[in-house]
Amino acid sequence: MGTVKTKRMPRAVREQQMLDAAVETFGRRGYMAASMDEIAELAGVSKPLVYLYLNSKEDLFTACIRREATALVEAVRTGVRTDLPADRQLWDGLRAFFAHTAEHPHAWSVLHLQARTHGEPFAAEVTAMREEIVAFVTQLIVVAAREAHRDPDLPEREVAGLAEALVGAAESLAAWANTADGTTARQAAATLMNFAWAGLGNLMESRPWTPPEA
Amino acid sequence: MGTVKTKRMPRAVREQQMLDAAVETFGRRGYMAASMDEIAELAGVSKPLVYLYLNSKEDLFTACIRREATALVEAVRTGVRTDLPADRQLWDGLRAFFAHTAEHPHAWSVLHLQARTHGEPFAAEVTAMREEIVAFVTQLIVVAAREAHRDPDLPEREVAGLAEALVGAAESLAAWANTADGTTARQAAATLMNFAWAGLGNLMESRPWTPPEA
Repeated sequence: MGTVKTKRMPRAVREQQMLDAAVETFGRRGYMAASMDEIAELAGVSKPLVYLYLNSKEDLFTACIRREATALVEAVRTGVRTDLPADRQLWDGLRAFFAHTAEHPHAWSVLHLQARTHGEPFAAEVTAMREEIVAFVTQLIVVAAREAHRDPDLPEREVAGLAEALVGAAESLAAWANTADGTTARQAAATLMNFAWAGLGNLMESRPWTPPEA
Repeated sequence: MGTVKTKRMPRAVREQQMLDAAVETFGRRGYMAASMDEIAELAGVSKPLVYLYLNSKEDLFTACIRREATALVEAVRTGVRTDLPADRQLWDGLRAFFAHTAEHPHAWSVLHLQARTHGEPFAAEVTAMREEIVAFVTQLIVVAAREAHRDPDLPEREVAGLAEALVGAAESLAAWANTADGTTARQAAATLMNFAWAGLGNLMESRPWTPPEA
């Protein structure tokens, strides 16, 4: 590694390069199997420099989770214009979500799989991100209900459940789309929109599915 | 532990008691924090007997995952009568699923959280169960499409995506229902049915949600 150029690059830039390399390596190999040697080599820096900047494998992994969680939430928020109708917001948000997870498959693997498969404190980082997304979706459903003048009729508990269902469906579909050859982000978003909105849409219009008589 | 009764009980029965205690302990404390001492005490047996029967903490955890995965799939299959209409099958299946996860919260924690948060080979056990459930839901959607005479119109990829979305939604909702006070299994099933079936129902009737013009 002695020949690697380590000069004249601001620390912030080099740190991002290390995180890029770490996300790819953790996503590809898994947290346990990923080695600091491999990450340093991919980042084009020496291993001691990685330790100097990011302290430990645990801290490096935590930094990866934080950066990628922030980037994903940011991508979804940026994709949505809150002055548009609720179904349009959901469609835009889903497209942004699936585009981001498709473009950053290693980051999604880190967030959805790796961060949850190696205990605390990693899992807590992802839980915080997830709660933020659930809150965002909850708000979207509340606005949609208001638009449909169903505000007081859709109980808070039902809205919370619907938001959890929608987020769980999106997580599941993103993992599937990234392994199913040839499924585009737009297709995944359209599938979920068909599944979710047509269902939510009925609910907003007071056309719930009714259980059969026992 | 010397005073514990260990006689005159068939090995199979005692093993189930150990697994009962292990599922509760793993679900409550998490895999890492759970101790074999605690599991043995809760099962009312000596620790050496747990090791004699189940070999190691890893093997004990694997045995828990296998038993609970089998029980969950069995509960859903038993709840569904395949000669009924597809929406009734889904409703029955969801009620069976949420009833089982509500009645066995520690088992659900082991399957949904613990088994996925401690790497392989545990995660692979849950993946196998999940694939079985996805296949079951896929078949249900195919049958529903056939009933609605939409068989050739609903592409295989779309069906696979819908099944992934539905299973992800159910997983997410089960975890939420078990932590949200006072949400019954029937309420959780009804929320998901509203979300999923009204949406799937529209799809079957050729009323997909259509994207707005760009």
